[in-house]
Amino acid sequence: MSTRDLGLPEQVVPPKGELPSRVTIWEVGPRDGLQNEKSVVPVAVKLEFLDRLAAAGLTTLEATSFVHPKWVPQLADAEELLADLTQRDGVRYPVLVPNARGLDRALAAGVGHIAVFASATETFAQRNLNSTLDEQFAMFEPVITRARAEGLEVRGYLSMCFGDPWEGAVPAAQVARAGTRLLELGCSELSLGDTIGVATAGQVERLLDTFTENGVGVGSLAVHFHDTYGQALTNTLAALRRGVSTVDSSAGGLGGCPYAESATGNLATEDLVWLLDGLGVGHGVDLDALVATSAWMAEQLGRPSPSRVVRALGG
Amino acid sequence: MSTRDLGLPEQVVPPKGELPSRVTIWEVGPRDGLQNEKSVVPVAVKLEFLDRLAAAGLTTLEATSFVHPKWVPQLADAEELLADLTQRDGVRYPVLVPNARGLDRALAAGVGHIAVFASATETFAQRNLNSTLDEQFAMFEPVITRARAEGLEVRGYLSMCFGDPWEGAVPAAQVARAGTRLLELGCSELSLGDTIGVATAGQVERLLDTFTENGVGVGSLAVHFHDTYGQALTNTLAALRRGVSTVDSSAGGLGGCPYAESATGNLATEDLVWLLDGLGVGHGVDLDALVATSAWMAEQLGRPSPSRVVRALGG
Repeated sequence: MSTRDLGLPEQVVPPKGELPSRVTIWEVGPRDGLQNEKSVVPVAVKLEFLDRLAAAGLTTLEATSFVHPKWVPQLADAEELLADLTQRDGVRYPVLVPNARGLDRALAAGVGHIAVFASATETFAQRNLNSTLDEQFAMFEPVITRARAEGLEVRGYLSMCFGDPWEGAVPAAQVARAGTRLLELGCSELSLGDTIGVATAGQVERLLDTFTENGVGVGSLAVHFHDTYGQALTNTLAALRRGVSTVDSSAGGLGGCPYAESATGNLATEDLVWLLDGLGVGHGVDLDALVATSAWMAEQLGRPSPSRVVRALGG
Repeated sequence: MSTRDLGLPEQVVPPKGELPSRVTIWEVGPRDGLQNEKSVVPVAVKLEFLDRLAAAGLTTLEATSFVHPKWVPQLADAEELLADLTQRDGVRYPVLVPNARGLDRALAAGVGHIAVFASATETFAQRNLNSTLDEQFAMFEPVITRARAEGLEVRGYLSMCFGDPWEGAVPAAQVARAGTRLLELGCSELSLGDTIGVATAGQVERLLDTFTENGVGVGSLAVHFHDTYGQALTNTLAALRRGVSTVDSSAGGLGGCPYAESATGNLATEDLVWLLDGLGVGHGVDLDALVATSAWMAEQLGRPSPSRVVRALGG
């Protein structure tokens, strides 16, 4: 099976070790970064956050989620946020949609780009979606089909791609099968998530190679790393060297569990930008403006940013 | 010039991208990690720290420094520490020696392995050693010669190998010249330091390639990264892929400036061990014992470890 069989453009697979000339940063701070914050951030602050991120040059901002407010009270203001959001030209504002009800809300809000959130493992599918690994695709199929029919673009998140707290290491072949299903269902991009932050660089390379061997080009793949064990940026570089050119990150490293001193969240967008600048890989972000935004957001949240770059430059 | 011309064993240069099967971790926590701590750590705590690190499987422990006590009050207890230290079989306890007076003290203390600390840039040589870049070698020559004559092994630290706060980016050719001088003077190993933590992976590769092109094999080189901009582990992996097999790190990520909230220090040994475990590269360290040691040391210092792994596992 090639990516053409999936209805996707043929992917150019760059030579191993060669870096992409440009990376698209998929900024998840406003959604993944904030969703676990206990104190609800005022919608005006979220709007300013989004606008400052766009002003800093980020062109993909995952704005919010249409998950049920009971599960994520922080994002219960999704409709209000989107109604008041001034969308900038050239910026995408995708939103997370967990199910058919979420899609209804997204369509009513006039959203043009959604993301669905699937599991690569049986146990997490049970715990997060109350379904089997196979059943989740049956659930997503009508959601993705309808979204596509309505002209929306659909990203597929695949979580627990490397390790799972209940199952341990996750076989690459299993992840490639689950990811391929999402692409077959109509996702235009697949984001491979290390939800618990345990992956190391060699594992990242092996998973990407497994996708390539199964006909899925890196042009359809994004990576999503958490820094729980300090590996997020190293894993990202491994993925870049396999030709991946879309990287998820969170301004200021927002995310994770905010209640523990040990909170470590997503890969920090600033630390990624520092790396890309050093490698001469284009990204379009004004680092100073981004650091100022994350330092301001850290003040709003009342604790320092976990991003090393924000700590070094944002003082 | 080859490494054989320097009186060193011929180095095997592994194919680019191939990892060493085993890495020697040069643990700098007791010296580089503690030296900037304002509150003097009791010698009994330092001794317990060293012994627990050795018990955790670390075989190279930079124990202390014979710098003048006026400059580093924290390490003014070097003689007392070494007198009371029970050295374990198979463990090296090198100490930093800044000059001839420091060597006198090291010899009197019965030390078998020293390290000297040189600069790759003119400005830092002036500020740190009050000498020109060339004059520093004239100062080190009799120190290294005498140490070798007394049967000591000598490591050379080279600082500011990538960026310098006054000079900006440091040319690789300049670093290779300075480093080669240290090897020619009799150092058996050169540790390339990113003292201000600004380097990125491509710069690391270019510097190592410059050494290789100048006949210095990676077997003579170690790397020493600081995590100021979140790049320490990523840079380390880049060096491993160039065949470097000695890596400096600090238990718990100790080091840096402890007065600032923003303190970020050396590469954390735990985060390095997590990466090496994932890559299947040997190191000999018991991660749980190391994390327990760093968590205990963080308690002694009264603030959380900056190591992600210690925060994730040490609670």
